[in-house]
Amino acid sequence: MPEDIKKDTQFKPLGTDTIRVFAPATVANVVCGFDVLGFAVEAPGDEVIMRLTNKPGITISKITGDDGRLPLNPAKNTVSVSVQHYLNSIGRSDIGFDIELHKKMPIGSGLGSSSASTVAGLFAAKTLLGDESPANKLLPFAMKGEEMACGHGHADNVAPALMGGFVLIRSYEPLDVIRLPHPKELYCAIVFPDVDVPTREARQIIRNSVLLKDAVTQWGNIAGLVSGLYTGDIDLIGRSMKDVLIEPVRAMLIPDFYLMREMAMEAGAVSFGISGSGPSVFAFTRDEQTAHAITQKLQDHLTKIKIGSQAYVSPINDAGPRVLD
Amino acid sequence: MPEDIKKDTQFKPLGTDTIRVFAPATVANVVCGFDVLGFAVEAPGDEVIMRLTNKPGITISKITGDDGRLPLNPAKNTVSVSVQHYLNSIGRSDIGFDIELHKKMPIGSGLGSSSASTVAGLFAAKTLLGDESPANKLLPFAMKGEEMACGHGHADNVAPALMGGFVLIRSYEPLDVIRLPHPKELYCAIVFPDVDVPTREARQIIRNSVLLKDAVTQWGNIAGLVSGLYTGDIDLIGRSMKDVLIEPVRAMLIPDFYLMREMAMEAGAVSFGISGSGPSVFAFTRDEQTAHAITQKLQDHLTKIKIGSQAYVSPINDAGPRVLD
Repeated sequence: MPEDIKKDTQFKPLGTDTIRVFAPATVANVVCGFDVLGFAVEAPGDEVIMRLTNKPGITISKITGDDGRLPLNPAKNTVSVSVQHYLNSIGRSDIGFDIELHKKMPIGSGLGSSSASTVAGLFAAKTLLGDESPANKLLPFAMKGEEMACGHGHADNVAPALMGGFVLIRSYEPLDVIRLPHPKELYCAIVFPDVDVPTREARQIIRNSVLLKDAVTQWGNIAGLVSGLYTGDIDLIGRSMKDVLIEPVRAMLIPDFYLMREMAMEAGAVSFGISGSGPSVFAFTRDEQTAHAITQKLQDHLTKIKIGSQAYVSPINDAGPRVLD
Repeated sequence: MPEDIKKDTQFKPLGTDTIRVFAPATVANVVCGFDVLGFAVEAPGDEVIMRLTNKPGITISKITGDDGRLPLNPAKNTVSVSVQHYLNSIGRSDIGFDIELHKKMPIGSGLGSSSASTVAGLFAAKTLLGDESPANKLLPFAMKGEEMACGHGHADNVAPALMGGFVLIRSYEPLDVIRLPHPKELYCAIVFPDVDVPTREARQIIRNSVLLKDAVTQWGNIAGLVSGLYTGDIDLIGRSMKDVLIEPVRAMLIPDFYLMREMAMEAGAVSFGISGSGPSVFAFTRDEQTAHAITQKLQDHLTKIKIGSQAYVSPINDAGPRVLD
């Protein structure tokens, strides 16, 4: 680590100038919590290798796993933009970072791909600088990245990616983010059917106004889900995970969504729905084995209808981002 | 108790043919839980004296405290209609009840007046017959009464009146009712300004469709409220009790609603809002003393603007209806 960085920083720097960080994929909305709920999974996720420099500004030296889809231009990449906002906020425009981004999860999958990268970058920066403030302090910077990635500074992916676990964004103005508990045995089965559902477009097909009676159904369900998370009542969690507003619209963009739901529920899923804006779908299960059975069944079906897919089975990730050796 | 009733009943009859029962007033909606949340208070409430007879059918021999507003005709009174539905359901159309209804709380106050009467009646009938099934089994019959009283079979007053405590109606079809915990220290200050806001009309001024962004705000808040109830986080409960959809419309029918809110919050309220469809307003507080200070302040103000009022200070009632000596 360059001497002048060590000297100037307001934190206790890590003592090394390079770090490798993993940040998790996330499932936003969680069926009945459009724009306010999300949770993190153990896998997949993204990796960032970050090097502290004493040259102001951020560079991106390498991106892998993105099929050339992400910009190396630091003014246009969500990771560098977020990290720059963070540096500005702590008054360290004198230093800089070089970033390698290794995408280990699909882009445009509805699994919070940009959030995972952004959170990995922010967590790497914070850790290198020895900033010990809690992870959720990084949330506003991560949301700047989301704003660039999908046109709206949502937090339902970045908040669980940063904080781990199950997260409620009660309010955006002011930002009020609450960690919710969950039954430890819950497993998550995720299948990403390889079709294109860009987040911006998926948002645009949602109507601006909804029937009050449907909204009442929705807030009865989110209240039931939160209750079930606190009491560990998995049946209640399952009963509550219904979406009468958003899913009927977004399901149209996902191949055989309702058939896949039927297959997952028959195979023992607690609940089934769209992850974020799709096209990934996810199921909660009571154990790992059932989750594997579901991903197998859904992938077999997708293969049959000639759609490629990727699948993940994971418990809920309570730790959020972590430093890799 | 007549011999043939004792003999025929499928339950263990109480051994007396007359009973006096109290059932509590309730605060429905709880600001951010329109149509799905409600809680019961210790006071006020209604009383029913019920006598088992071996003559089929239900009679109402006396109603007090209603200023002649409630019908003695058992086909038109919510209490007798609900109890008759209950009798039919258990196949006891051979017996009957005579009912005295003593209104101890104002009608049309937004405090679940008809629910308190109905629940008192149902609980009296169940107890006289020795029916030991849980109170929430009576819910469908109580909802029949609500349907007659306000044109819609809501459960957000009858469910907490029957079950006590804080109740979530997650779903109406099928009916799914969940008891929520609450911090024991929460006190409730209620003020009923004596102006007329009929429930039917209060419902009709609410629009059928709402903005999705407002609905999102609302379900973020109800999720926050449920979280705060489980963790006992009274600050979070207060922050979450906001209503951007219904309150702005209903507040117009309540004299100086926003001024009363300001006064209550200044006096230390955790939250403030409309009880049910109004015109009663309520505040949560952290102790009894603050609740008294708030009712005093609001009643003084209402007196100044020449509006009569009644006030109640009470903890949350966890027991629901009870037999009185």
